[in-house]
Amino acid sequence: MTFHEYATLYQHNLLNDVVPFWLQHSPDKEYGGYFTCLDREGKVFDTDKFIWLQCREVWCFSMLYNKVEKKQEWLDMAIQGAEFLKKHGRDKDGNWYFSLTRTGAPLIAPYNIFSDCFAAMAFGQLYQATGNADYSQIAITTFHNILKRQDNPKGHYSKAMPGTRPLQNFALPMILCNLVLEMETLLDKQLVENTIQQGIHTVMDVFYQKDSGLIMENITPEGQLSDSFEGRLLNPGHGLEAMWFVMDLATRNNDQALITKAKDITLSLLEYGWDQQYGGIFYFLDVKGYPPQQLEWDQKLWWVHIETIISLLKGYLHTGDEKCWQWFEIVHDYTWKHFPDPENGEWFGYLNRQGQPLLPLKGGKWKGCFHVPRGLYQSWTTLQQIAAKHALSTQPK
Amino acid sequence: MTFHEYATLYQHNLLNDVVPFWLQHSPDKEYGGYFTCLDREGKVFDTDKFIWLQCREVWCFSMLYNKVEKKQEWLDMAIQGAEFLKKHGRDKDGNWYFSLTRTGAPLIAPYNIFSDCFAAMAFGQLYQATGNADYSQIAITTFHNILKRQDNPKGHYSKAMPGTRPLQNFALPMILCNLVLEMETLLDKQLVENTIQQGIHTVMDVFYQKDSGLIMENITPEGQLSDSFEGRLLNPGHGLEAMWFVMDLATRNNDQALITKAKDITLSLLEYGWDQQYGGIFYFLDVKGYPPQQLEWDQKLWWVHIETIISLLKGYLHTGDEKCWQWFEIVHDYTWKHFPDPENGEWFGYLNRQGQPLLPLKGGKWKGCFHVPRGLYQSWTTLQQIAAKHALSTQPK
Repeated sequence: MTFHEYATLYQHNLLNDVVPFWLQHSPDKEYGGYFTCLDREGKVFDTDKFIWLQCREVWCFSMLYNKVEKKQEWLDMAIQGAEFLKKHGRDKDGNWYFSLTRTGAPLIAPYNIFSDCFAAMAFGQLYQATGNADYSQIAITTFHNILKRQDNPKGHYSKAMPGTRPLQNFALPMILCNLVLEMETLLDKQLVENTIQQGIHTVMDVFYQKDSGLIMENITPEGQLSDSFEGRLLNPGHGLEAMWFVMDLATRNNDQALITKAKDITLSLLEYGWDQQYGGIFYFLDVKGYPPQQLEWDQKLWWVHIETIISLLKGYLHTGDEKCWQWFEIVHDYTWKHFPDPENGEWFGYLNRQGQPLLPLKGGKWKGCFHVPRGLYQSWTTLQQIAAKHALSTQPK
Repeated sequence: MTFHEYATLYQHNLLNDVVPFWLQHSPDKEYGGYFTCLDREGKVFDTDKFIWLQCREVWCFSMLYNKVEKKQEWLDMAIQGAEFLKKHGRDKDGNWYFSLTRTGAPLIAPYNIFSDCFAAMAFGQLYQATGNADYSQIAITTFHNILKRQDNPKGHYSKAMPGTRPLQNFALPMILCNLVLEMETLLDKQLVENTIQQGIHTVMDVFYQKDSGLIMENITPEGQLSDSFEGRLLNPGHGLEAMWFVMDLATRNNDQALITKAKDITLSLLEYGWDQQYGGIFYFLDVKGYPPQQLEWDQKLWWVHIETIISLLKGYLHTGDEKCWQWFEIVHDYTWKHFPDPENGEWFGYLNRQGQPLLPLKGGKWKGCFHVPRGLYQSWTTLQQIAAKHALSTQPK
């Protein structure tokens, strides 16, 4: 397949399959917001509304409207979700709940900060589409609330006894690397620069471990390995996803050395996380090879694979390293053979180690309208850039 | 195989394999307490001390001392764990932590009540072995603390917003059915009777659903099905384990009708939970056949299988229902083919759906010295009773 043919495949899957699937099955026309628990055919099997996924779907349709085409249907879809969230999503202090009932009653408390991260992302992107000041206000207020809560994001829900084994977690710094670019136009310039520098430093110097070439999920306050279940934990997909966030930041700053470092870490994480026996990337591993506590460790998840494809393609685009392309072909083949469901549309989310669907769902409590469409969009447009670059180049491919 | 041969198999696995495995690999001779994170060969791979498992190992060696043989080595093993727990296990209000570091520093807060349940069980059993009043005092105080906390066991760690979707959970009533018998001699007679009647009622009338013949994990305050992820959840092993607790209570009260009902539910849960394709009992199912949120739903766990064997054997002993024996042979064959590790001793804990070990561990954060030895003891002695009964009977078997 040529670069152009690959690009077309990702584009068509996005626009003719995945986006129509969510447009058709996901809107709750009675109460607003989205259904995300969709079975193989798109039928709703549960009506709870998980804030991560509600926000991510608002973001997704806003992004498509902003970046792909000014389709009113997409904008309407984003706005109806945002209005539901605006009305029901927050507690009186402006913290975002974890989940709501179908009608919008608060179900699970704001016990973590990621609902807030995806809310800021959603309302920031929707503001770009609408210019509606309510939306920018929600995005900005939420962003500052995240910064305020970032040193103790779980509050009284934290089960760790203070002081015994303090650990820094990778997820928030990683997400901030992406969120700050999403919200760049809404924030003070210096705050943007500081957050970017801090984010890059935390991901690439603190959580990245030079000796192993790996990125840990949890490290000591001094940046060292903690020899505990949490401290030995690797989530290869997390690190692989972060690498394209970093490449985007590095591209913005024209920092070729940082791009190369992120590309090298991508390859290193992928080589480590790849299942030599059955193919695909493991969900969790223990850096010392011990049994991880996560029983789902050997499963193959949709988001891990599509995020890896993005990082490989961006790495190839910006550095030309043929290893990125070779790995892209391997991960692409595995992904397209196992995840998409040509019969009913969209992608399966969860495969067992052998590559068979573990659950028949297209959406649930954690899988919604986000990684697949974002990944297809990112891959499509990156492949287009690769094709354009190679068309200009005298080197045959 | 004859009843007697089966009994001998369970007895020998307990006394010549499983108990020696824990005696050899588990004690922390430097700081006290036990290592439970043991790899395939018994080598320690993590030194954290999980209160559930510390307590359960104290209980196990005390029980063996009380019921099997007055071996000093077993009593010493129990006491050294209990002394570590007595010194480090509780916060200033007497709540039991979830986990400690190797040296005994509190690591994870008392966020659930099951640490306390297993502590009461451990110190109650150890008191029977020693007559040490310190131990009975800890058991009694902890038991009353459980009763005090039972309506809000998670306290401020609960993430559910009050009022939106209140649910009753099966685990605590189920455990109390067992705990109250364990502690019978230490508690006020009327409290014992009330707790037993309440426990039986809750398990057999409230959580048991007549229409389906199943036991739900979570139900509404009115005892109805909640059409939500939590409400649709089935944990067949939980219900199957509870049935032998109920049979023990019914035997104590000489209530044959209750024994028959518990036997019928055992068969009904097992028929529902059995994997027709690969054998073994599923870990989680959704009562409406939807995808469960637990990604480990299709795995085969050691405790589910040994607990089921106990209920089938007790059902057969007390009712003579041949279906119990037929199912026992099926579950026995699956269990002994897949879980025990004759090469290195003890049992694997976690198999994938196909029956292959998912993790090579013999112990970890949740698997310790408890279900296997308790189950082997219960099965061995129940099989002995079955053999004795049949030897007296004129009917050939």
